Amino acid sequence: MSHYHPLTEQEAIEVARGIAGVFGPEGELGCREIGDGNLNLVFHVSQASTGAGLIVKQALPYAKVVGESWPLSLDRARIESEALGIEARLAPGLVPKVYHSDNELALTVMEDLSSHVIMRQGLIDGGVYPLFAGHISDFLAGTLFFTSDLGMNQQEKKTLTRSFVNPDLCKITEDLIFDHPYTNADTNSFDSHLRPDAERLWADGELHLEVALLREKFLTHAQALLHGDLHTGSIFVTEQSTKVIDPEFAYFGPMGFDIGAIIANLLLHYAAQEHWSADAASRKERRQYLIGTIRDIWNGFERKFRALWNERGVDRIAKTAGYQDDYMRRLLQDTAGFAGAKAVRRIVGLAHVADIDKIPDASARAKAQRLALAIGTALIKRNRRISSVEEIIEIADSASRE
Amino acid sequence: MSHYHPLTEQEAIEVARGIAGVFGPEGELGCREIGDGNLNLVFHVSQASTGAGLIVKQALPYAKVVGESWPLSLDRARIESEALGIEARLAPGLVPKVYHSDNELALTVMEDLSSHVIMRQGLIDGGVYPLFAGHISDFLAGTLFFTSDLGMNQQEKKTLTRSFVNPDLCKITEDLIFDHPYTNADTNSFDSHLRPDAERLWADGELHLEVALLREKFLTHAQALLHGDLHTGSIFVTEQSTKVIDPEFAYFGPMGFDIGAIIANLLLHYAAQEHWSADAASRKERRQYLIGTIRDIWNGFERKFRALWNERGVDRIAKTAGYQDDYMRRLLQDTAGFAGAKAVRRIVGLAHVADIDKIPDASARAKAQRLALAIGTALIKRNRRISSVEEIIEIADSASRE
Repeated sequence: MSHYHPLTEQEAIEVARGIAGVFGPEGELGCREIGDGNLNLVFHVSQASTGAGLIVKQALPYAKVVGESWPLSLDRARIESEALGIEARLAPGLVPKVYHSDNELALTVMEDLSSHVIMRQGLIDGGVYPLFAGHISDFLAGTLFFTSDLGMNQQEKKTLTRSFVNPDLCKITEDLIFDHPYTNADTNSFDSHLRPDAERLWADGELHLEVALLREKFLTHAQALLHGDLHTGSIFVTEQSTKVIDPEFAYFGPMGFDIGAIIANLLLHYAAQEHWSADAASRKERRQYLIGTIRDIWNGFERKFRALWNERGVDRIAKTAGYQDDYMRRLLQDTAGFAGAKAVRRIVGLAHVADIDKIPDASARAKAQRLALAIGTALIKRNRRISSVEEIIEIADSASRE
Repeated sequence: MSHYHPLTEQEAIEVARGIAGVFGPEGELGCREIGDGNLNLVFHVSQASTGAGLIVKQALPYAKVVGESWPLSLDRARIESEALGIEARLAPGLVPKVYHSDNELALTVMEDLSSHVIMRQGLIDGGVYPLFAGHISDFLAGTLFFTSDLGMNQQEKKTLTRSFVNPDLCKITEDLIFDHPYTNADTNSFDSHLRPDAERLWADGELHLEVALLREKFLTHAQALLHGDLHTGSIFVTEQSTKVIDPEFAYFGPMGFDIGAIIANLLLHYAAQEHWSADAASRKERRQYLIGTIRDIWNGFERKFRALWNERGVDRIAKTAGYQDDYMRRLLQDTAGFAGAKAVRRIVGLAHVADIDKIPDASARAKAQRLALAIGTALIKRNRRISSVEEIIEIADSASRE
């Protein structure tokens, strides 16, 4: 029988105290539960006398969403800690250090990132992160290449997929990203002024076919070990540092899903400039910064991924003339399509983003929402014809000029 | 510690005697090992007084190929018996009945099919199997649809993939089908008169790109639970009955790999008519029979698969307008490409087919081999542009007219 139970703050302190070399021998430890309480408990254990701290994260056996709760496997805590271990090896310095994990208690003890801010909030507050594109393209190239058949022994990859079968969390994505936004589902949530826009989504056959094809890739294309939920709320930043957290959705899926997630969230913030920029000039400047970041992420990713392919590829077939170019083209197309799906769901689906939802003025908010929908649907519809990241950028820019 | 050891004939008799309801209470049981000894022991246990029999199949912990031996996981016996169980449910009457399995001894006790012949030999002997296309299209439609995300709950499918991670056997396919035939590999084996043809294969960049793309699908596209080795040597037939055996290569992969395997082996036999038909008229008639069987298999499969999709689909997304047509088009293209790869490897790769290798006259054999290579390479090169099974047939017919 499992001895699983949700920890109390006192128990979290005891777990943290068991980690050697973090806290000083004297000085009280304090504890605060800082999670949003939907899926996990997140305890911040800290020592005032030394400034040292740790995070104790524990999965809850259910998800609380819109007041309801449904059961959710605790196995996701094991998946998260194993994914963090792999990411730490393949993208050094870009994930929090893990000190301890306990699968039965579904908990992971990790580095305290209080010196960082969640990137979504950082962006809302006007932050600029000049090293971010370099860091996240390192993360994407390293984790995706070395867990794919290009950079990993194919038999070891097959064995590793067994550890990342993740039905519960994948189900959330399958429903909330690839299904519900495109039909009148109970879980959908949107401002009433968006009803005509939502109804257009629900009736758009061309869009539905592309979403069905993207969903099929999510269901069947075991290309690499994904983070699986790589939005700007899963990234801690400072001007100098980037730390990717929360890989509990990790599974073997299509690489473009991770790359697209980042790009989508930058595009959502781009759309949100209808409010967050004080005037037209600063809006233009802010958007140029975001577009430049998207460009740098894709181009950096492509350059690094191709370099790994050329220098660290595991077999001769990958060297077949024309294969790498064909692969990168399909990867960019997947990235565009998944970015579009990730943007649309944040406007009409269950889970939104603060960048847009926190715009107080209804008219500015509606404008941002419609811009995000226009960009998202254009990316989805055109995904299979995209041949350059500049086309993704042009989709955003032309939608914002309309 | 495992108590695995290769069974003696006497032990096989004891295992068989433990199966209730097969043998009469009196009368000796005889035993003969009838396997080819490369991968498995296959004991035929029979009772002369009643005519009753059973097969006791046991995996060996190594593969013997070209005199060498390499280790091979015994887990494939578990995979085989579990796959047979699933196939029996989804394609009733089309696989041997399993009476008993023992994962530690890596053995499966199953129905004796002595009343049937191996289809490859049956075809070589001039056999005609009028019900085969109907049976095998039932098998393909049932097993592939109901283990895909179209016909199976997506979360249960993910859990099931864990049981069919099959690195050792997939490695054989990856090497012998998608790699070695396209380079000067030690494992390749071909008649010396074929060296110029082999060298053309090794230098054909257009072909290599298509093979790399097909291999990528084999590695990453977890579409459905495949048989994984569905050639005419894995099928027992009579005029009335079809039984698919030996699913030890089973894993979640692209559906077209199974459909293509059947078609490839019929095309190899088509090429082999350079010898097995006595004259031009009988050759033409025999080829029309084989072509008709290929047409009936694809058309039967497509009709049945679409019917299952329409009547037994598990979710609303699969009903998206245009999605089914797009899916079937891609499936046919995969089928053509994998059929081509399966044909080529049987001419220049390690493992050949008796249909062609047993042609005694070197000149007729060379003609058959070159015809098989012409059909195989054309299927591979054109696979992404195929839009009808008639194009596959036209490729075979036009190659045979040259």
